[in-house]
Amino acid sequence: MQDDNKNTSDLLSALKDRDAEAFLLAAEGLHYADLADTFEDLNKEERDFFSATIGAERFSEVITDLPDSMVEEALGEFSSDDQREILDQVSDDDRVDLLQDVSEETRHKLLELVEPDDIEVTRSLLRYDEDTAGGRMTTSFGKIRLGLTVKEALDELRASHVDSETLARVYVTDEKDRLIGRLRIRDLAFNNWDTPVSGIFRPCKHTILASADQEEAAQMFSKYDLIVLPVIDEHDRMLGIITYDDALEIIEEESTEDIERMAGMAGNVSEESYLNTTLSTHFKRRFPWLLGLALLAIASGYVMLKFEYVLDQLFVLALFLPMVVAAGGNTGGQASTMVIRAMALGELGAGSTTRVAWKELRLGILLGSSLGICIALTTFFVLPFFYTNMPVEVGFFRFGVAVAISLTAQITTSTLVGSLLPIGARRANIDPAVVAAPAITTIVDVSGMVIYFLVAKLMLF
Amino acid sequence: MQDDNKNTSDLLSALKDRDAEAFLLAAEGLHYADLADTFEDLNKEERDFFSATIGAERFSEVITDLPDSMVEEALGEFSSDDQREILDQVSDDDRVDLLQDVSEETRHKLLELVEPDDIEVTRSLLRYDEDTAGGRMTTSFGKIRLGLTVKEALDELRASHVDSETLARVYVTDEKDRLIGRLRIRDLAFNNWDTPVSGIFRPCKHTILASADQEEAAQMFSKYDLIVLPVIDEHDRMLGIITYDDALEIIEEESTEDIERMAGMAGNVSEESYLNTTLSTHFKRRFPWLLGLALLAIASGYVMLKFEYVLDQLFVLALFLPMVVAAGGNTGGQASTMVIRAMALGELGAGSTTRVAWKELRLGILLGSSLGICIALTTFFVLPFFYTNMPVEVGFFRFGVAVAISLTAQITTSTLVGSLLPIGARRANIDPAVVAAPAITTIVDVSGMVIYFLVAKLMLF
Repeated sequence: MQDDNKNTSDLLSALKDRDAEAFLLAAEGLHYADLADTFEDLNKEERDFFSATIGAERFSEVITDLPDSMVEEALGEFSSDDQREILDQVSDDDRVDLLQDVSEETRHKLLELVEPDDIEVTRSLLRYDEDTAGGRMTTSFGKIRLGLTVKEALDELRASHVDSETLARVYVTDEKDRLIGRLRIRDLAFNNWDTPVSGIFRPCKHTILASADQEEAAQMFSKYDLIVLPVIDEHDRMLGIITYDDALEIIEEESTEDIERMAGMAGNVSEESYLNTTLSTHFKRRFPWLLGLALLAIASGYVMLKFEYVLDQLFVLALFLPMVVAAGGNTGGQASTMVIRAMALGELGAGSTTRVAWKELRLGILLGSSLGICIALTTFFVLPFFYTNMPVEVGFFRFGVAVAISLTAQITTSTLVGSLLPIGARRANIDPAVVAAPAITTIVDVSGMVIYFLVAKLMLF
Repeated sequence: MQDDNKNTSDLLSALKDRDAEAFLLAAEGLHYADLADTFEDLNKEERDFFSATIGAERFSEVITDLPDSMVEEALGEFSSDDQREILDQVSDDDRVDLLQDVSEETRHKLLELVEPDDIEVTRSLLRYDEDTAGGRMTTSFGKIRLGLTVKEALDELRASHVDSETLARVYVTDEKDRLIGRLRIRDLAFNNWDTPVSGIFRPCKHTILASADQEEAAQMFSKYDLIVLPVIDEHDRMLGIITYDDALEIIEEESTEDIERMAGMAGNVSEESYLNTTLSTHFKRRFPWLLGLALLAIASGYVMLKFEYVLDQLFVLALFLPMVVAAGGNTGGQASTMVIRAMALGELGAGSTTRVAWKELRLGILLGSSLGICIALTTFFVLPFFYTNMPVEVGFFRFGVAVAISLTAQITTSTLVGSLLPIGARRANIDPAVVAAPAITTIVDVSGMVIYFLVAKLMLF
């Protein structure tokens, strides 16, 4: 790591001095992920120098690690010949990713540059949606036919060596290209050369359909500790593989997406780092939610306006109004977060609504009454020292009990709303994270106002 | 997957009938992760039957996939001899995890049962904290000395075959056990047997210190697409390896932890699924936050109480009060979520406070003024149809402008608070996720009340 830091700072000073030789020397020692990180932070002139100096071959590694939104501009830095070189150097799945990141027009131009050997597989991969198993897979993997010996298999694999993104697993197929088993390189390495492959392969327990969601693939990796997952079509034909590093990426992406949706951010996750995302992108992702929530919040204000006469009669009610309202938002947020995360981890099946509701109902009553008791005690024993205008016909005791009761009712309602809304959203085929914390907070604000004023009205006047 | 579902339902009906033969048949076809999922959902009597029937050897796989809190009870189902068998069957790192999951007393008893061959490595691994690289590593990996030939290396590895959790990478060390390079099995398989290892190994670019945080290890996996990461001590001696499946697990754990902290949940992430977590555990994780936030929210109430005379003069202010307050909570929550996630992904270095503040300041002004304009327009054009008591000396125009100004001020303040508090927390060595959304919402509620009433007072009376 020490070396990496030194190389990165060498690279930056070479960039500043426009010193091509020093730049190449420093770049040599860096991983392409570090080069991509550096490139992302550069200004226009520095990027020009970077691309011109580093050359198409090395840049073909760097570009696969750039944020999607930068791909088009980065490719634009190169001549057609260099673009051809880049498209040739990257793996099938990376090439398709690059093509999916550019405009329709550029895509057509770039497709002309793809080598004849690669064009068929490129076009067929382009058919899969970016976030399906098929969209994530690579088509270069170790594949051998049943009926070979270990020696023949090794020879065949060695011949295909350079093209295989991973040889951690080798797949055995029948004459119709149907997947029938798998091998590890070590099974070949540790067996006699004349052993038939049919005697040493093992069945493939886990496979995924090309049309399945990428999240399903990631969940299989983490549950079964897979290193490679074969992707098949409806006829069991083997199309490609997804590797563990794709799974890591999917899990990070999906977690970020969930976290951001839960905080009320619209649109796709930005692949740029926080600081590199433009102000207008940040704005576009946050504003629609804010506006929607603001309009919802006016409903709370309307309730308050309607209950003016209650506040007029006993203004000290204002002291605990924000607390009762906020407590609902907080418990509702907690409940929705727990449920959304449990759904994301695949813990909640379709039939679990009743169990969730029953759990959160009891939890809501428990949390609400515990908090209610704490607040009631504060009201009896602490409030009299600070507030001396309490009307005698109300009294601190009745006042405290009323606050506690509305708190319990509000928290129970909010816990239920917070846990059931995401489940309802999923049933309606809406991403549950979309109805998350901020929306629920704003919704239960209204219930909080109504409950608080109604309880006060019924118990105190 | 079809098969798995069938096997799981077969297993469950065999469990219900207490049919040992059918149970074993169904269990045979299932992955241990599925068996662990099933075990977790069983009641006490079913678990007894499960453990008695499946036997120690197979259970040794299942137990590594159970939630930490269930390990002690699950081990308790077995005799000392079976416990010895389980401890013998699992890998070094899993054994240590099991020992870290039980009480001090049980740990002492279990340590007596560990085979003499394994006791030294077990004790040395126990020294590392569970969430460091050392606590995550396994000590069984392929290791060869410099100076061997390919044939000798293969023979040596074959002899150690059964003990290696992964042979995806083989490490080359010098006479002092210092890590000097790495090989892949395929490098051995595809080379002549008399090639010296010294001629074909490659340097190891990425290593991690045993004392480093597990999150750092996971970030290296995802950045550099690693499959194995060697763990070293301060003298460069190779201690063990962390594998890609550990990285997947770490990323899932840390994301869940962040998500739950952000929603105001205390304590460690529950490893049990949502439905299997007891009511009292859910309660304990949610209540402390709720109580703290409730006390904070009283401050908002206090502000409202102090500004009674403002509301008294113009009660229609109540209509937009919840909105101004909530808008601050929402923008503060969005800002803190973005910053916390960026920190978790390693995007924000120590020196970026000013850049973050500058970005969020501009964004706050932009969001605030845009929302302010929307609300002001609503006030001029829509409110007069619904509210007819607006005092002439105030007027809808001045009223709308006042609301818009307080909204802009509140949103700008909240965006800054939301983005800077997590950075401040990290400086003070507090997990930034702890000061997340709910805390910030409650804090900015107070600023919202103050700003709203002050602006109203200055502009309208």
